[in-house]
Amino acid sequence: MEQKKISPGRVGIVGLGLIGGSLALDLQELGWQVRGLVHRSQTAEKAINRGLAQSISTDPEILSDCDLVILAMPLKTILNPDNKLLNALPKNSVITDVGSVKEPVLNAWRTRHGRFVPSHPMAGSSEFGVTSGRKNLFRNKPWIATPDKRTDKDALQLVQGLAKSIGSQWLIAEAHKHDQAVALISHLPVIISAALLGSIGSEKEPEIIELTKLLASSGFADTTRVGGGNPELGTAMAKNNKESILKALDSYQHELNNLQEAIIRNDWNKLHEELIITKNIRGSFLDSN
Amino acid sequence: MEQKKISPGRVGIVGLGLIGGSLALDLQELGWQVRGLVHRSQTAEKAINRGLAQSISTDPEILSDCDLVILAMPLKTILNPDNKLLNALPKNSVITDVGSVKEPVLNAWRTRHGRFVPSHPMAGSSEFGVTSGRKNLFRNKPWIATPDKRTDKDALQLVQGLAKSIGSQWLIAEAHKHDQAVALISHLPVIISAALLGSIGSEKEPEIIELTKLLASSGFADTTRVGGGNPELGTAMAKNNKESILKALDSYQHELNNLQEAIIRNDWNKLHEELIITKNIRGSFLDSN
Repeated sequence: MEQKKISPGRVGIVGLGLIGGSLALDLQELGWQVRGLVHRSQTAEKAINRGLAQSISTDPEILSDCDLVILAMPLKTILNPDNKLLNALPKNSVITDVGSVKEPVLNAWRTRHGRFVPSHPMAGSSEFGVTSGRKNLFRNKPWIATPDKRTDKDALQLVQGLAKSIGSQWLIAEAHKHDQAVALISHLPVIISAALLGSIGSEKEPEIIELTKLLASSGFADTTRVGGGNPELGTAMAKNNKESILKALDSYQHELNNLQEAIIRNDWNKLHEELIITKNIRGSFLDSN
Repeated sequence: MEQKKISPGRVGIVGLGLIGGSLALDLQELGWQVRGLVHRSQTAEKAINRGLAQSISTDPEILSDCDLVILAMPLKTILNPDNKLLNALPKNSVITDVGSVKEPVLNAWRTRHGRFVPSHPMAGSSEFGVTSGRKNLFRNKPWIATPDKRTDKDALQLVQGLAKSIGSQWLIAEAHKHDQAVALISHLPVIISAALLGSIGSEKEPEIIELTKLLASSGFADTTRVGGGNPELGTAMAKNNKESILKALDSYQHELNNLQEAIIRNDWNKLHEELIITKNIRGSFLDSN
């Protein structure tokens, strides 16, 4: 697709958490008029104090003159927007979202708005809330769109231009392939990391519990970070990417059984070979980033 | 146990990798005469250039006048020391080790030397080799000893004094409880993290492989760090802590199945509750550190 440089206009951002707030800061810097829509007046006040947008309101009518609206709410709310929001979206504006699972979003919005572009900027931060937005969060990070045949080409081009203007790497993929990839690389780690915390937490012997707390080091902290993250986000991911996550879990169980059987059979050569392979897999991923 | 401040004497360190090299630097600073024993003359040369010890040799005879000898070799070598090393250990010196699994070490050394103290300083770094040692690596980190009834009390006190002198937190535990705790907190994470890499690596569809590489972020990097680590170390841990690791894996499989079943049954309340519990478990571990 040919790339046009976009000229800043009026953008509405629904939700001013980590993603919405960071987008708001970058887009203001680029000359956009940013209108922020938030749920609670308390949040509106904080967002105003932080200077996240030129105008901020709890009334969806604030979106009425926007050229572009970015749905930066939690996935659950993107999938089930309230009618007041839907009615306030201008028919001719381009709508995009930031939901981390794309097929359900595409299905939910395909018939709701003629200029909807399913997309997803990658943030790489676990902070959240109205105080977490910051400049340049998306620089050199992927921003992936998952259009289908019916997606408006001009709308897609506008979102591409927006993504590139804040320094993101623009990618296009089929929604179901995107969802399978994030199931493997992002959602599966949450589940297996949570199960690790669960098994450590199920230890009953007080002396061993005490020792595990004393001996827990960076290996524990790293491996459990995503499993000890936001429970709402983890649940929403699983609910909306169920089939891909279950497929990834089957593959995971297969690998885990392989390693477990090598240990049971004292097959240390096999275990050693597997650990060489996994070391190389990790290397191949981190080199490419 | 009453704590006496120890006076620096002559210490032999067998192996000058991350642990041995770091101990050598700290102990020299405290006034110890440090003798380093290494396997290859090339390593000896590098260790001399780095000033890791006052004298360094490939000949075990260098240990002959030491008051204390620290076995800082890989676990495999600690468990199977060669005869030349065994014969060179002075009868009256205190011997301790740095092996990360304690029951096999205790079993292997109990009858080998009358003043052996099984112990294990925690380093919290994944570097290795003769260039990796650095000062203050053990400061505020646990140093755990796993004596049994037959362990020489004065020898234990000397190792305690040594550990405290370099800033470590001194702990005592039963060897098999230590091994169960590290199975849960340190060895299980390696296996489950390796299985994650294995399942990501087993994806066959080129477009999904490409997407996973583009979308891999800090969550992937953190969760796979220990599973992509040193294959020799991972194999040695599994081999020497087999029963505790298999027990931990059983508990892990149980937790993983719980989460998987909640997803299969669309039981999002249950999944949400579990993720709240795992978040709290992680918090309780990191608060106590």
